[in-house]
Amino acid sequence: MQVSFACTDHGLKAPRTSEPNKQNTSSPNTASAARARFRTVALIARSLGSFTHRHHISLKESTGKLTANLPLTHTSSLSISFSLLGTWVTFGGQISDEVAEQLMTIAYENGVNLFDTAEVYSAGKAEIILGNIIKKKCWRRSSLVITTKLYWGGKAETERGLSRKHIIEGLKGSLQRLQLEYVDVVFANRPDSNTPMEEIVRAMTHIINHGMSMYWGTSRWSAMEIMEAYSVARQFNLIPPVCEQAEYHLFQRDKVEMQLPELYHKIGVGVVSWSPLACGIITGKYENGKNEYVLKMHSPSAWCLRNEGVSSVLLGTSNPAQLTENLGAIQVLPKITAQVASDIDKILGNRPHSKKDYHH
Amino acid sequence: MQVSFACTDHGLKAPRTSEPNKQNTSSPNTASAARARFRTVALIARSLGSFTHRHHISLKESTGKLTANLPLTHTSSLSISFSLLGTWVTFGGQISDEVAEQLMTIAYENGVNLFDTAEVYSAGKAEIILGNIIKKKCWRRSSLVITTKLYWGGKAETERGLSRKHIIEGLKGSLQRLQLEYVDVVFANRPDSNTPMEEIVRAMTHIINHGMSMYWGTSRWSAMEIMEAYSVARQFNLIPPVCEQAEYHLFQRDKVEMQLPELYHKIGVGVVSWSPLACGIITGKYENGKNEYVLKMHSPSAWCLRNEGVSSVLLGTSNPAQLTENLGAIQVLPKITAQVASDIDKILGNRPHSKKDYHH
Amino acid sequence: MQVSFACTDHGLKAPRTSEPNKQNTSSPNTASAARARFRTVALIARSLGSFTHRHHISLKESTGKLTANLPLTHTSSLSISFSLLGTWVTFGGQISDEVAEQLMTIAYENGVNLFDTAEVYSAGKAEIILGNIIKKKCWRRSSLVITTKLYWGGKAETERGLSRKHIIEGLKGSLQRLQLEYVDVVFANRPDSNTPMEEIVRAMTHIINHGMSMYWGTSRWSAMEIMEAYSVARQFNLIPPVCEQAEYHLFQRDKVEMQLPELYHKIGVGVVSWSPLACGIITGKYENGKNEYVLKMHSPSAWCLRNEGVSSVLLGTSNPAQLTENLGAIQVLPKITAQVASDIDKILGNRPHSKKDYHH
Amino acid sequence: MQVSFACTDHGLKAPRTSEPNKQNTSSPNTASAARARFRTVALIARSLGSFTHRHHISLKESTGKLTANLPLTHTSSLSISFSLLGTWVTFGGQISDEVAEQLMTIAYENGVNLFDTAEVYSAGKAEIILGNIIKKKCWRRSSLVITTKLYWGGKAETERGLSRKHIIEGLKGSLQRLQLEYVDVVFANRPDSNTPMEEIVRAMTHIINHGMSMYWGTSRWSAMEIMEAYSVARQFNLIPPVCEQAEYHLFQRDKVEMQLPELYHKIGVGVVSWSPLACGIITGKYENGKNEYVLKMHSPSAWCLRNEGVSSVLLGTSNPAQLTENLGAIQVLPKITAQVASDIDKILGNRPHSKKDYHH
Repeated sequence: MQVSFACTDHGLKAPRTSEPNKQNTSSPNTASAARARFRTVALIARSLGSFTHRHHISLKESTGKLTANLPLTHTSSLSISFSLLGTWVTFGGQISDEVAEQLMTIAYENGVNLFDTAEVYSAGKAEIILGNIIKKKCWRRSSLVITTKLYWGGKAETERGLSRKHIIEGLKGSLQRLQLEYVDVVFANRPDSNTPMEEIVRAMTHIINHGMSMYWGTSRWSAMEIMEAYSVARQFNLIPPVCEQAEYHLFQRDKVEMQLPELYHKIGVGVVSWSPLACGIITGKYENGKNEYVLKMHSPSAWCLRNEGVSSVLLGTSNPAQLTENLGAIQVLPKITAQVASDIDKILGNRPHSKKDYHH
Repeated sequence: MQVSFACTDHGLKAPRTSEPNKQNTSSPNTASAARARFRTVALIARSLGSFTHRHHISLKESTGKLTANLPLTHTSSLSISFSLLGTWVTFGGQISDEVAEQLMTIAYENGVNLFDTAEVYSAGKAEIILGNIIKKKCWRRSSLVITTKLYWGGKAETERGLSRKHIIEGLKGSLQRLQLEYVDVVFANRPDSNTPMEEIVRAMTHIINHGMSMYWGTSRWSAMEIMEAYSVARQFNLIPPVCEQAEYHLFQRDKVEMQLPELYHKIGVGVVSWSPLACGIITGKYENGKNEYVLKMHSPSAWCLRNEGVSSVLLGTSNPAQLTENLGAIQVLPKITAQVASDIDKILGNRPHSKKDYHH
Repeated sequence: MQVSFACTDHGLKAPRTSEPNKQNTSSPNTASAARARFRTVALIARSLGSFTHRHHISLKESTGKLTANLPLTHTSSLSISFSLLGTWVTFGGQISDEVAEQLMTIAYENGVNLFDTAEVYSAGKAEIILGNIIKKKCWRRSSLVITTKLYWGGKAETERGLSRKHIIEGLKGSLQRLQLEYVDVVFANRPDSNTPMEEIVRAMTHIINHGMSMYWGTSRWSAMEIMEAYSVARQFNLIPPVCEQAEYHLFQRDKVEMQLPELYHKIGVGVVSWSPLACGIITGKYENGKNEYVLKMHSPSAWCLRNEGVSSVLLGTSNPAQLTENLGAIQVLPKITAQVASDIDKILGNRPHSKKDYHH
Repeated sequence: MQVSFACTDHGLKAPRTSEPNKQNTSSPNTASAARARFRTVALIARSLGSFTHRHHISLKESTGKLTANLPLTHTSSLSISFSLLGTWVTFGGQISDEVAEQLMTIAYENGVNLFDTAEVYSAGKAEIILGNIIKKKCWRRSSLVITTKLYWGGKAETERGLSRKHIIEGLKGSLQRLQLEYVDVVFANRPDSNTPMEEIVRAMTHIINHGMSMYWGTSRWSAMEIMEAYSVARQFNLIPPVCEQAEYHLFQRDKVEMQLPELYHKIGVGVVSWSPLACGIITGKYENGKNEYVLKMHSPSAWCLRNEGVSSVLLGTSNPAQLTENLGAIQVLPKITAQVASDIDKILGNRPHSKKDYHH
């Protein structure tokens, strides 16, 4: 299995020069120091062998147990199995409805119980497909975790910010498309400085009180913004957010490893990691871009999950075979020992430092 | 009438050796000191004569009056008649639907107005049978007290802990099976340390605000855990629990006699006693087990009710004749005078001691 | 028009001996001092002449204006016209449905816009008749003030006290019988010391939040009990009661003239007076009872209304002609000047004294 | 385009004598000093040239952007586009249904997304017409801002003040007529000193919690009354008002320029200006009245909008051609520079002074 991923500039400390590896081979190009470093990570990862489940039992059987073991957050019992399937890559034009259904069925039958979508994915089509499959397959709603995100900042229909109206109307629209009575978590995607925080938290509390969602979370908010939401919730006795959906991968570590753990320990807000690396693993579509590296590595998502504050990694996929392979990848998790993680840190040289350490 | 009961190890201070009485006779085997002691209790109990109602009127006629006399709790007006019928022993596979209906009808016609069930009893079948009978018999909902319990910790469907989702979805499922708009009390069975107390109390308040339950209670929680729930309710202006469903019998006295009365007097949380002894009275099915004693005794449930903080004893039964007999048993209550109770205490030698006494 | 009324013992200070006047004549029997005193009151009242409306306009036309002039309470805008019709005397067996409809129509067409009923009046039949007439006549709901009372302490169905369950279920039953979505005020009839005040106020707030009633009030509660309800409402940010329905007549003055005004000025709770005298005016049915006096008097209800804290007097009637006559009676109100009221006080000799006077 | 407007006495400081200009010409009559002053304003206004959009793009395209640029209030994200259409002049008897539909269609197609109505406009007919057009044209509800006002103080049906009953029933009636599930803002028209502020704010919070409105605002309230509403909302953790609909024009400047900005900066309550001048622009119907001036001026509404605290001006119209012309008028806004506004201030001589200035 080959791994390719695109990284953003920030968070990427070490590699100053890079030659994109254009071949899907198992022998990486070692032309530069940066590449060598990445290759080493890959080799370490490979030494972990074929992916096996953390507790050496199948995902499906272990879901219940893991739920208890992996609390998503201190302030809520929303303990999500770490087996998730993001629908945002898979659905809506990029793949056919048939493939979408095939992918979801494979995921579900392998123990994936969380499906993450958004009102804007394929202009709502992702939600419609997801809703149709749930209904057609008669999956028990109570054992599913369905999350959606309210977007804004893009085109007209989603430009209304995080106003009370957009939060309420936006979620109503999602629920109609999903044919569901409620979602488990509704995420407010990106903070909105034009809407008073009191309005956002009141609206989120409103939809929870009306049974439209069980919890609410943030997505791409800073630790300070999440803290403000929490503070406003406490001031007016409203319901605080339970988790942040954050970007997290080998080259974007600071927020998830330094800032969010402090939030997690102070106010109990957990993390759902969203990783462009995980996407890259499968599609390889960033292969020709500028900031791109191809790496032989089995376990980026497992690396994310080794962080105790991270209970989930959103996976995206468009190919059934890749999905099956990828689902197995999390089984490498127990092999990422403290020593292995430390080795990776040394190679990358980008482990965030702090005076207080919340990871023991 | 013969009494057999199984006791748990803890709470059973006196009897160190025991010979299970395998015969259903009225002359108890007195081979050991422990047995003698039990027998004496039984004799005292028998001396109370045939069971008569506390106020010398029929259960049915007195229900209203007793309701006022037996407040279940200080923080709520939920004064439950002490005539209850737990459905957990009777229904679902162990007995036929016809017998279940017969038992409930006898109970109802004798003044029993509380039926206690749970989502897990016979995998939901107990709730379905109860709902069907209420509907078929056209019993007035307003004069019935229907309680159910949210279980977790067992198999998959009920393993979700006391999360907001389980509380809401679990109760919705119960209400559908019961064909009812609301229950009178929903109990959270066993505490869940993985779910923040704020989430539990917010969810319980949510279902009460949505008219799905009138009150909420706890089951098998420690006094400290109940106190925490109460405290969180006060902190966020939510609705506190009104009662704890606790195990209580001659050999399990500490919690109900020492800890809960303190809670009752401080925050008004009452007790619904759940007694394996009461089951034992009727079925005798523990007769051959290890920790088992067979005792000629008429009034264990009456003994439970003599505690002013205990307003109900859940009865289980699978036989119409036994039920009728058992319903009469509570009439012995007024005969358990302070002197009789004191005599029992002396024989058992396990009366809990405290510096503060709330029973005067 | 002749007036007969029954008075209760308390509040009746002066008359120690009495000869019931058994004749419906206009010349009162003056045999005793007590009688003479009453007769004098009657003569004063008669001197006020034929009843005319306070503002010399018809009730119907003046309703809007009076609404503004007679605030029922400080804490609510529930300004009820003083023209009320209690349904409790008229309906349910005592008179036919046809007469009931006739009476209500006369009242409505003369500007009466408040109809007060209760779940127990004629075992619910009063509510059914009232609901049917409103529907049949297509009276605009928004211009009607419909109030009902939750009773308890009587027979089985109403014995459940002011528990959350009784409050919610009781009002639901009333609304079904009335065929209405909501009532304007639901009164908790008599305090219930067995139900914690927090439960009562939470339940009342619940029904208001659910749109089942606009306001809630108390009936026959002491000033201290009302103050406790208000205090609990403030403690938990719940909705306080807006008015007390209290007995008030010439011989029962203390509560309405001394205690409730203090409440009215401190926490804004208003008074709806309920007067057995008003009943007596019309029916004369107490004529032969022990504590009974027959008096030629036109204006007992007007006398009640002269108290600025009293904005309504509940009238009961069973005869269309008497109703029409009685409706005119309130027009005497402007003629009860300070001097007239003072004269009445001197004759009766039972004006309550206080250090603080709220009536200036 | 010619402008005529009627002004009220207060706020009109300078002109002591006036000769109404009865001709719709572009050369104003300059007979008196006052007239000369007005004319000068008109000339300045005309010098702004033909109306162009603030950002030189069409209204329709800019709506989204402007929404973010023109926050209506600090306490809410209710950023209303400044292109509004008040329905109160246009509908109900004054013009036919066909013309009303024509006007609304023109407005909508030109980017107007807010329609303001009231329960009393043409006795409810304005709401019915508006609702019918929205339904017929299938306009997306989520992109519309529909506001209505609760009136009282007039005829019987609306005389009930701002009682809980009137607020709830009044809005229910409006929603039925509008065939909508909710309005965006419900305004309480005129303060009601007979209703306790707590009752008003509780009722407004009630309708928002029940999804009948997204926000609530005030109309014609003083700054002190709005502050009291805000204060009561904070005291009881209720939802504060978000905006005041206030009269604002060249001769009524004090409230909007002096008092409301202080509120806006302290508690975030914004302003929707309601301008009789804007009406006058189009209809010219006040032309023959006493306090009337006819003035050649292009930009009174643009002048209102130049105030950063004013995000909208309600326009009324009865003629499609005038509407089109008027919609273009706001495009003059960017031309009202600080210098131009200052010149107008000097001519009118009525710019309010303050120690604190919130406009920089």
